[in-house]
Amino acid sequence: MKTDQAELTFRLRCIGCGASPGSAGQNFRCADCGDLFEFVSSDLTCDPSELRALWLRRRASIGKTTTDALDQSGVWRFRELLPHIPEEHAISLREGNTPLYHLHRCARATGVANLYAKHQGMNPTASFKDTGMTFAVSSAHQAGFRWVACASTGNTSASMAAYAARGNMHSLVLIPEGKISWGKLSQSLDYGALTCQLRTDFDGCVRILSELVRQKPVYLLNSVNPYRIEGQKTAAIELLEQLNWEAPDHIIVPGGNLGNSSAIGKALLEMLELKLISRLPKLSIIQAQGANPFYRSVHEFGGAKLEPTTADTLATAIRIGNPASWKKALRVLRETGGEVEQVT
Amino acid sequence: MKTDQAELTFRLRCIGCGASPGSAGQNFRCADCGDLFEFVSSDLTCDPSELRALWLRRRASIGKTTTDALDQSGVWRFRELLPHIPEEHAISLREGNTPLYHLHRCARATGVANLYAKHQGMNPTASFKDTGMTFAVSSAHQAGFRWVACASTGNTSASMAAYAARGNMHSLVLIPEGKISWGKLSQSLDYGALTCQLRTDFDGCVRILSELVRQKPVYLLNSVNPYRIEGQKTAAIELLEQLNWEAPDHIIVPGGNLGNSSAIGKALLEMLELKLISRLPKLSIIQAQGANPFYRSVHEFGGAKLEPTTADTLATAIRIGNPASWKKALRVLRETGGEVEQVT
Repeated sequence: MKTDQAELTFRLRCIGCGASPGSAGQNFRCADCGDLFEFVSSDLTCDPSELRALWLRRRASIGKTTTDALDQSGVWRFRELLPHIPEEHAISLREGNTPLYHLHRCARATGVANLYAKHQGMNPTASFKDTGMTFAVSSAHQAGFRWVACASTGNTSASMAAYAARGNMHSLVLIPEGKISWGKLSQSLDYGALTCQLRTDFDGCVRILSELVRQKPVYLLNSVNPYRIEGQKTAAIELLEQLNWEAPDHIIVPGGNLGNSSAIGKALLEMLELKLISRLPKLSIIQAQGANPFYRSVHEFGGAKLEPTTADTLATAIRIGNPASWKKALRVLRETGGEVEQVT
Repeated sequence: MKTDQAELTFRLRCIGCGASPGSAGQNFRCADCGDLFEFVSSDLTCDPSELRALWLRRRASIGKTTTDALDQSGVWRFRELLPHIPEEHAISLREGNTPLYHLHRCARATGVANLYAKHQGMNPTASFKDTGMTFAVSSAHQAGFRWVACASTGNTSASMAAYAARGNMHSLVLIPEGKISWGKLSQSLDYGALTCQLRTDFDGCVRILSELVRQKPVYLLNSVNPYRIEGQKTAAIELLEQLNWEAPDHIIVPGGNLGNSSAIGKALLEMLELKLISRLPKLSIIQAQGANPFYRSVHEFGGAKLEPTTADTLATAIRIGNPASWKKALRVLRETGGEVEQVT
């Protein structure tokens, strides 16, 4: 993975109390205050034009070495902006590199000059989760784990199961009773995940999983895992590359557990600091009215607290009542000047 | 679309009687003998290394012009090997450019030295049909049609509906009673296709559609359309690019209507003639035992005829009893030395 660029050094920092331990522990929660970790770098400098050219050269790689395979990934070709994982541990399915569509008619209909959509479904398991999962499963491989696990019935478990299989690891999916996305669950089963249905709800599954990872050598892949956030940053880097590094006015994403908006926001802030972009787009988040805890946090409590709700919406992928990454997302809204809205 | 390469000139030719009319007519059947058409070129020459370099440069395109958008497509970046369609008619969703996975463990398990799989699900509507559909819908646009149509309940209709919507055209899907792939059909409905369920079977839908396209200005997008075959050729070109133009020993594909194997085989033969590759891989076809008319044609009748069967298999995408492109596929088997097998 030699490049002309000095690699950035990342360390973990708790977003609550600022503690910076050497490792995050099995449940990725701060031992002091219980909050989430994020990766921070104190030496964010680079030569923007060299980095841009390097990333683009990799886009046209067709070789068959391990490095070539990583260059062909829309996550790993941006590895200079990610914590270091040695390439022998990298588990990739050539994720990312998804197209950006210019939506002329939608733009006219909505009265904006230019409207684009990034088709994140064009990933190996058909969701954006793959961009974070390739990186987090690789970190599990680097740490020597044989088992990975998550509580999920949808895109996350499908993605985890695929990458675990690719990395010759075992995967465990905990699912609650009822409200199962069968199409997505069948993907996990096809990829060989051990799938356990528990007589509890989603939060109950998360509690049991947290206990499990403390007692057994199982690597937790829910979105509290900061490696997933790092991998998901690359969607924003790639978006800006596709816009020839001219920042759009506004980026709008759906919000469930708020890991994705946190990742995109983090990437924007880092790209600004690195002078890869010259101004920040606003990042705004849309929640379903039936699953709007973050909307209510911002509009009712000014972001001072988040009250978990009972989530109910047809949009199952964002049917989340207690979003893990809400503090990270709140910071992104504030630093980019974005909004949170709800829709029926 | 200026390139350093002289563009090849393609003309239509009937695979049955060799007739070569100026256009194929609305139902893409030869007026003389009723057989299918294919595109042939009499001037297949090029500079292989220049073409390869050109195609790879396009892979790294990030610009926003129409030409850039086509360069970013895994179909249109190979346009030198396709019949000419002016770029103002090209309707693309940035299809193709799908990854090739090196399957080390499957290779060991099956006792072959190297085994690769090309993940054609990583297309805009999640199937390989997109590679042919972008090209055929563009040809409909070039010919001035406002309506496109197909008989299908699966990947074909989903793909057609998406490209028609992108091209601001109307689409019509005819479906038989029962045995509907609802997940796929819902895609077509989402993309706005007019969907009619008819009290008949699949063949009945095809007959009604053939009548319809003769009477009304509706463009037929079933796989008898030779533009679809041309677009689907690019999967093979891209595969060889990913293998650095070293032909594999064997390419194996599932066989239903046999359009895909015909397209891949046609691409292989053309690449050999153009000296883009130096030897032909075998192309072999696998049918489901419950939908094996081509297997029986080859093994029982030596390819002299094909007896339509009642198809029944869980693999709905290849549940086809009367494959339209069987003569094209037969020629590919013979010219490449491949086999057809059946599996339960």
